[in-house]
Amino acid sequence: MIGGGQLARMTHQAGIALGVRFRLLAEGPDVSAAQVVRDPVVGDYTDLDTLRRFTDGCDVVTFDHEHVPTAHLHVLEEAGVTVRPGPHALVFAQDKGLMRERLTGLGIPCPRWRKATTAEELVAFGKELGGPLVVKTQRGGYDGKGVWVLGDATYEAVEEPVATGVPLLAEEHVSYVRELSALVARSPHGQAIAYPIVESVQRDGICHEVISPAPNLEPRLATEAQEIALTLAKELDIVGVLAVELFETSDGRILVNELAMRPHNTGHWSIDGAVTSQFENHLRAVLDLPLGSPRTRAPWTVMVNVLGGTAPNMHYAFLHTQARDPELRIHLYGKEVRPGRKIGHVTTYGSDLENVLERARHAAAYLAGEIDE
Amino acid sequence: MIGGGQLARMTHQAGIALGVRFRLLAEGPDVSAAQVVRDPVVGDYTDLDTLRRFTDGCDVVTFDHEHVPTAHLHVLEEAGVTVRPGPHALVFAQDKGLMRERLTGLGIPCPRWRKATTAEELVAFGKELGGPLVVKTQRGGYDGKGVWVLGDATYEAVEEPVATGVPLLAEEHVSYVRELSALVARSPHGQAIAYPIVESVQRDGICHEVISPAPNLEPRLATEAQEIALTLAKELDIVGVLAVELFETSDGRILVNELAMRPHNTGHWSIDGAVTSQFENHLRAVLDLPLGSPRTRAPWTVMVNVLGGTAPNMHYAFLHTQARDPELRIHLYGKEVRPGRKIGHVTTYGSDLENVLERARHAAAYLAGEIDE
Repeated sequence: MIGGGQLARMTHQAGIALGVRFRLLAEGPDVSAAQVVRDPVVGDYTDLDTLRRFTDGCDVVTFDHEHVPTAHLHVLEEAGVTVRPGPHALVFAQDKGLMRERLTGLGIPCPRWRKATTAEELVAFGKELGGPLVVKTQRGGYDGKGVWVLGDATYEAVEEPVATGVPLLAEEHVSYVRELSALVARSPHGQAIAYPIVESVQRDGICHEVISPAPNLEPRLATEAQEIALTLAKELDIVGVLAVELFETSDGRILVNELAMRPHNTGHWSIDGAVTSQFENHLRAVLDLPLGSPRTRAPWTVMVNVLGGTAPNMHYAFLHTQARDPELRIHLYGKEVRPGRKIGHVTTYGSDLENVLERARHAAAYLAGEIDE
Repeated sequence: MIGGGQLARMTHQAGIALGVRFRLLAEGPDVSAAQVVRDPVVGDYTDLDTLRRFTDGCDVVTFDHEHVPTAHLHVLEEAGVTVRPGPHALVFAQDKGLMRERLTGLGIPCPRWRKATTAEELVAFGKELGGPLVVKTQRGGYDGKGVWVLGDATYEAVEEPVATGVPLLAEEHVSYVRELSALVARSPHGQAIAYPIVESVQRDGICHEVISPAPNLEPRLATEAQEIALTLAKELDIVGVLAVELFETSDGRILVNELAMRPHNTGHWSIDGAVTSQFENHLRAVLDLPLGSPRTRAPWTVMVNVLGGTAPNMHYAFLHTQARDPELRIHLYGKEVRPGRKIGHVTTYGSDLENVLERARHAAAYLAGEIDE
């Protein structure tokens, strides 16, 4: 696996049960996943020679993030390395412009969009929409970085994104009632499974809370969301997990926001809440093993991200939250605490949604130092 | 953790979520747990200098097995190393003679027993019992090794155990209806949790199948079994998991067979079948964190061990079992396949015991190469 973040850490955790020999290319000797795997390789994933040496002898190569240059991945594939998802698919997770073109070609509902590089193009598109605009860099943004929400697309407002000098994508600012996520896994021979559609709540552009399944979601929309994800997995020939972030609009439509071709924050609930976690199914998919059941194990599962607070030592918060709720599931990523940094997540499950929500929210807030009690 | 078998492997897997930095002393560079942890240390756990170097800087030291000499552990404790469970407790898992003396002193029901070294003593105890006899080495036996079942304690029959030249323990051969196991975890400040009493089926002296909870167990006996385990954990001052293997007799009694002070084969079901697994609770106990709920997540959970068959490559068996049952949970230990060797386990759960049993038994038999279909 290329990339040593928490996704690789939790993928390795799942791979232990499958008997997988996990080789990691990490950004540094002590990043999240490097702490818990045997013999992590430290190197630069943008360097082709590093990638060549690292992938030599791997049965399959997969990713913790979508930032490996696809040109390098094509070279590896031509040299006989098995890359899953392959660069022909991964490019649609890397480049939002290509993604919008392809999805629109497939008839998948998206917000109205326009590629742009100049201030004139952005201002013109803003006028055309007659409402607020979202501007993104076509490549490289994530967790709220490389994204600008403009109330009004004036020349002054578009200055900052245009100043990046990189290709941009402008999109209508959808007036949505909530965000949903559709998570599927697909194997090389085309078997696919779909997890239930979940509701995700973002805070400052970062996934904050996920409720599985999405409360009060119309069955028609749940089916449509799963079909969109399964269609995309097939049409883009994705192997592994695909997460499709969606907007549910006030007029009862769903629109695709973003794609990720790897285990995703909106699927962390599945470790404790589903028969087979997204991490295990990602491995089973890329290893061409039969996929595991995505069935939920409780009526409701809630995941809340734990962000770093100002206190560097979480030991007492850990004691408090575990003692308060013996059924709480805590997942820490081994990261140094920095304010606002994703350092873990908590999961709760049960049959009473209010209770499940309260427990997860309290624990995450307490671990983040937001509660004094 | 000292010892690099599958118990350490699964303990590390649980520790990843807790953010634990796991240091391993392994018997070899590629044993089960050494494959999946960062920087395993290879060394001899019977060598005091090795233990000294390995434990330097550890917050707490715990075990994958009970074979570390307690004399060494006392030296480490005197040097300020935190050892959990401590040697004063561990000795009762190492020495069956001391264990029987202590349990009898505490009024815990045991089979009738006698320490012995000579043929004369064994033959005399056999006559006194007037029935079959079980002879064990007081130290060092496990998984059926170091145990002799003698139908009749003749001088000829006792020859083999006496020839070992080590101290022996003779016990009445209990006519039991089944074997049970009581699993508890206890932390340094005395908090304890008890898992439900399970039924375990042995085959050739090795744990073969575990049903959680034990079907049709009288509530009176379930409570008594949990109380025995909780009493022992407290009275022997055990920190971590304690497994008490029990006989249920035909006249409605339970008797203690063996003790283990570590995660135990009869608790593997808890990974998929309980809110908190035995591995996580062992870590939470030895790290003095509040313990997690031992509540079951399904009416029935069944675990069956996978033993090595004659085919060295399990890949196709793996494909078959995963495709046949998408809810099957497979846990492999990364061990080379050798006939009769524990190489993994499978777990199933659900509300219909017959169905759950059939699925787990089929998968384990298929993975062991016992089924041609």
